[in-house]
Amino acid sequence: MVLKVYADRISQPSRAILIFCKINGINFDEIRVDILKNQQFSPEYKAINPMHQVPAITDGRFKLFESHAILIYLSCAFPGVASHWYPGDLSKRAKIHSVLDWHHSNLRSGAAGFVFNAILAPLNGLPSSPQAGKEAEKILMKSLSKLETFWLKDGRFLVGSSQPSIADISLVCEIMQLQLLSEKECNRILSPYKKVLQWIEDTKKTTAPHFDEVHGVLFKAQKRIREQMTTKSGTNELKAKL
Amino acid sequence: MVLKVYADRISQPSRAILIFCKINGINFDEIRVDILKNQQFSPEYKAINPMHQVPAITDGRFKLFESHAILIYLSCAFPGVASHWYPGDLSKRAKIHSVLDWHHSNLRSGAAGFVFNAILAPLNGLPSSPQAGKEAEKILMKSLSKLETFWLKDGRFLVGSSQPSIADISLVCEIMQLQLLSEKECNRILSPYKKVLQWIEDTKKTTAPHFDEVHGVLFKAQKRIREQMTTKSGTNELKAKL
Repeated sequence: MVLKVYADRISQPSRAILIFCKINGINFDEIRVDILKNQQFSPEYKAINPMHQVPAITDGRFKLFESHAILIYLSCAFPGVASHWYPGDLSKRAKIHSVLDWHHSNLRSGAAGFVFNAILAPLNGLPSSPQAGKEAEKILMKSLSKLETFWLKDGRFLVGSSQPSIADISLVCEIMQLQLLSEKECNRILSPYKKVLQWIEDTKKTTAPHFDEVHGVLFKAQKRIREQMTTKSGTNELKAKL
Repeated sequence: MVLKVYADRISQPSRAILIFCKINGINFDEIRVDILKNQQFSPEYKAINPMHQVPAITDGRFKLFESHAILIYLSCAFPGVASHWYPGDLSKRAKIHSVLDWHHSNLRSGAAGFVFNAILAPLNGLPSSPQAGKEAEKILMKSLSKLETFWLKDGRFLVGSSQPSIADISLVCEIMQLQLLSEKECNRILSPYKKVLQWIEDTKKTTAPHFDEVHGVLFKAQKRIREQMTTKSGTNELKAKL
């Protein structure tokens, strides 16, 4: 039975899994779980992931969720995956685990919390908290600074690598979520971090054309949101179109 | 050069690393980084972990932080570690990664956020937020429910195992932080979860006597806090004694 990837391309860890499978020639079926329609709460999906989140995979009877666990599993289970994605060397692998673990409470927490409170919650009629948004922005800025000065200090990719690993795909997909903000806001946040900007471009290049193809849904959402922002026609129309 | 573990036993992931080393007979030097004295911000420690958190390790010239990455590294780097702590089997290992990843934004986020706002911030004169405390409590209760109904549904230990893994040590050490609350509050939170309570006991037993020995600092802090709570003598004295 072919690998099944349960995903919504508007979700950053879903995109990471899809890009990884495509760049490595892994044969899979993509099964859309529309999170804006709450399909992650359906009984069918609960049997796949009782935490009601995307992405998840099934490989035969084996089920797995949490995107980092999935990336590691795919790297080991499919022999065609090049070793730079998840090196066998103990020290290199440990550093990749370290940055992936750091990601959860830092870049992920900051970027997702900020984008949710600044854009996604107002657009979808959900309660947002300016205070939580501010806290998330602080975590985001601190995380970008640590990427610039520590995680990217020794190489073109994370933890001193000359080729991308699963960590680069995961973290760059997270940062791409900032594209949902206005161009000005996105520039304000990212422009101080030159190494981060170069690393995003390098990760895009090494995963082309799949990176842009999988991000198509995000780019479309960005276009709609930014058009609405310039015409100032309010969030109700935005919600309907998103 | 012997392995060095930089830790403060009042920190739950520090305890997880120390217990793991002791139960597996790994020879190491424990180097105290007193987080209540802000020693994690010293220039010396910044060279070990620029994120200013405990635990971290050095193994010769190799440096590593993030407790899950450390547990995985130690399991692989020290041949004496029994395979049940981090099984070589691809599917079992993937499930352990899954629960460790889930832990970050769920049990860790809920328990640490709740204990910080309810006890640690007031005791240490730091600003606390009742709203953030309530949000963290919700995440904590939901996480305990998922442990009871999903992660512990198929076995004595997490993800259907009959023997403990690195995930059991990490998550049980996290829950132990709730012991800093009053006995009544701790019971209110944990007593509905019978499997969770049994699993905590089972993890303690399989890591005895190291579990209780490493938790000595926490038990002492608990005793002081609870004595102060009963005499209602305020938080200033508590702070001085903690």
